[in-house]
Order: sequence, then C-alpha cells, then structure tokens
Amino acid sequence: MRHRLEVAAKKGMLADSAMIAHGRGEAYDYLLGERTIPSAHFASQIALQSLQQAEHPVLSVNGNVVALAGDEVLHLAEKLNCPVEVNIFYRTPERMHALLSDLNERKKRLGVEVEILGENPDATIPGLKGPRAKCESRGILQADVLLVPLEDGDRCEALVAMGKTVIVIDLNPLSRSSRRGSITIVDELSRCLENMLSMPMQDLPTSDSYNHSQSLQNALNEIVDGMKYKFSEAKD
Amino acid sequence: MRHRLEVAAKKGMLADSAMIAHGRGEAYDYLLGERTIPSAHFASQIALQSLQQAEHPVLSVNGNVVALAGDEVLHLAEKLNCPVEVNIFYRTPERMHALLSDLNERKKRLGVEVEILGENPDATIPGLKGPRAKCESRGILQADVLLVPLEDGDRCEALVAMGKTVIVIDLNPLSRSSRRGSITIVDELSRCLENMLSMPMQDLPTSDSYNHSQSLQNALNEIVDGMKYKFSEAKD
Repeated sequence: MRHRLEVAAKKGMLADSAMIAHGRGEAYDYLLGERTIPSAHFASQIALQSLQQAEHPVLSVNGNVVALAGDEVLHLAEKLNCPVEVNIFYRTPERMHALLSDLNERKKRLGVEVEILGENPDATIPGLKGPRAKCESRGILQADVLLVPLEDGDRCEALVAMGKTVIVIDLNPLSRSSRRGSITIVDELSRCLENMLSMPMQDLPTSDSYNHSQSLQNALNEIVDGMKYKFSEAKD
Repeated sequence: MRHRLEVAAKKGMLADSAMIAHGRGEAYDYLLGERTIPSAHFASQIALQSLQQAEHPVLSVNGNVVALAGDEVLHLAEKLNCPVEVNIFYRTPERMHALLSDLNERKKRLGVEVEILGENPDATIPGLKGPRAKCESRGILQADVLLVPLEDGDRCEALVAMGKTVIVIDLNPLSRSSRRGSITIVDELSRCLENMLSMPMQDLPTSDSYNHSQSLQNALNEIVDGMKYKFSEAKD
C-alpha cells in the first residue's frame, strides 16, 4: 500500500496530507488486527445490497482511493454497472487530470467498461464552499446511494444532508465520516472492496437489519479488546 | 507539526516513511486526547532525572525528531550539558548533511552551545547491519543513558542489549520501542520536551519509583477510556 501511494504521489495524484492520512489509517488497522472484523463484513454486505438496489448508485473516489484501490473500484463499478466520479477535496486541474488519466489507463489495462465522471462538473453540493463543492449533475448530484471511501467529514455530512444514502469506508470508527455516514464499514479499503467483489449478489441482508450505532460500537470493542490482548501478549 | 514536516521534507531531511509514521502518531495522540497524561508526566520526570545523573548522557535524533522539535532538543541538551547525535535509520550522506546543517542553523539562531555528533561515525551498534548501525564512539557508543525519541524497534532493542538506559518517547504504548525501552514516555514529542524543559532539576523522582509495565498499562487505559468517552459523546 505504501508503494502504491509513493507511485501515485510521483504522478501528482495526491494531496499533501495523503501520506499522513494513510499513516493514521495504518494505526487503526494495526489496532483492528489488520483483518476484516465481523461487523465490517456485515456492513459491507448491507452496502453492496444498497448499491445494487439503488436507482443511481455512484462510487465517489479521491486521490488516496485511486492510489490504493483503483482497480478494485473499477471492478466494483462494473459489477454494479454504475459510474465512478472523481471528487477531490483539494481540487486542482493538475490533480484532476492525473487522476482521470490514471483511471483511464487502468480501465484499458483491465478491459472494463466503466463511465468515469468528474472532468466536467456542472453542479455543486449544497453547504460546501469553493472547488470542493463541485460535482456532476448526472453523477454525485443525482445519486441516491453513494460509496465514499476515505471521505472528509464535512463532505460526508453535506451529502447526508442531501438525503442520500452515504456509504463510508473508514478505519477510524470515531471519525466524523464514520459517525455521520448512513452505512459505515470500518475496514481497510482494498480488503473491503475485495470482499465486496467476491460476495454473491443474491441473498444479501437489507438495510433494515443494519444498526449503525451498534456496528460502530462493535468496531470500537474490537479495537479495545485487541489492544488489551496485544498488551498482555507483549508482556510475556 | 505538519507544516514543520513539510518544510523538513523540502530540505531533504526526511525518509520516505516519515509522513506515514507521523500520521500513525497523530492517530494515537488523538486517542490520548492530545494531552500529556499523568503517567507520561511522571515518566518524563524519571527520564530527566536519569539523564541528569548519567555519566555520559546523549540525545539521539533522527529526521522526524529534528523536524518536529529540533529547537526543544537543543535546549534540553544545553540544560543537561550533553551532546546531540544525529543517528538515522535510512542513512545517506545527503540526509545526514541536511540534518546537521539544520541543527547548526538552529544552534546559531537560538544562541545555544551544544555539541552535535553524527558526522564522523567511528563505531557500530552491535547487532545491527549496514549504515543504520553507525554511531560515534564518544557519543552513542559510550553513552550510559540515551534519549531516543521516535526510535525504530530494532535499534531500540540493540541499544538496550548494550546495557544502556534507553529512554523512549513514543505515542503508541504497544510499539516495540515502547515495550523494549528502559523508560517510555507515551506523549507527543514537542509536548514532552517542553514539559522536560520547564521542570525544575531538583527533587525529581528516581528510577526505582518507575514501573515500566504499569506505566504502559496506564497509557493504554487512558486510550481505551478516551475512546469509550469519545464514542458516548458522539452518540449524543
């Protein structure tokens, strides 16, 4: 994962804060035991079902998402037959270009048919200011169910306020995005997407069996228990 | 702190992994409530007393330490009348030069008289291989008490195996350095050093009143309690 980020940084795909954000994620993943915990697996089933049943599902990606799991995102979009929209917090023409090029190269290499949006924003997310509010009307604006991995808290809240079902993937169960999302998967991004790609699309649990607060509490309990275990092990 | 790292990165002072390591630290500091917990304050008193009573105290610094708290390290070295040794894991002539120049500029600006070692390594730390083993015989090699903030686990273990008192400053109470160090201060680096600089040198507790395992357990308890509190607060 670090190598993927280094490559992406050289291509100009990442914001300055990308490496620090990744380090924070690494710390939480270490505390989770670097594995998919049961509540995250269940939440990802709920998420897949919601995306599948949506009228206009969209996968929103930023620099770290493309760097860490660009291939997996494209495979998931193909599986769901939905567009991917590049939507970044620190939006500059150079970074947008680097990300769109990278995704288009991946599409060619993987041989997948997926629509990539983000190049021509013609709408804004209400409640946000400046370039970070930009989006496409036939992408994020009209989406009823949105996957926003590694999303900023402000943007997550603004999307929820629009009435959308917002699916968050975040390793910190206490982050604002985790708390404010409609469905939160506390898991490492590529691990989560690989799980979603290997899931059958039938017989998935529906969102009425998902308890958001309980799911986050479970993740927190796993971290706390894991820390206690690691410490008792370390003392031996 | 992020700005300090960005400036240092531009000067060539940091390893590729520096930002990610800092991000991990940020996650733990967030969990600790971004404050000095009582057990860390006590451990830093013990550490200051050990350094003060040492025959050959040395402050060992790497790229992140110089970037985040170069001034504080120099002030502490002056207070203790001991040398600072630049000792980095990914040792290259360019990074060594950048770090030594930066420290010498700081010395001039602050008007402090501190010996800076590391430029002419003539000894090795037993048990380590390659450039990362290099050190100076009149610095780290002969030191009886060493402060090694943000140290790598392998190097921390090798220094402890030499019979030295190794004082670690690390935000993760579960890290190998934290566990293997002789005295561990679970605190953010600049906060910890500022505390040590403002402490009177008299009437400090001695190391026989320090329980290493209990001190780490206290830090872990603070993190776990903090997470539970943050979560219950977030639910309201």
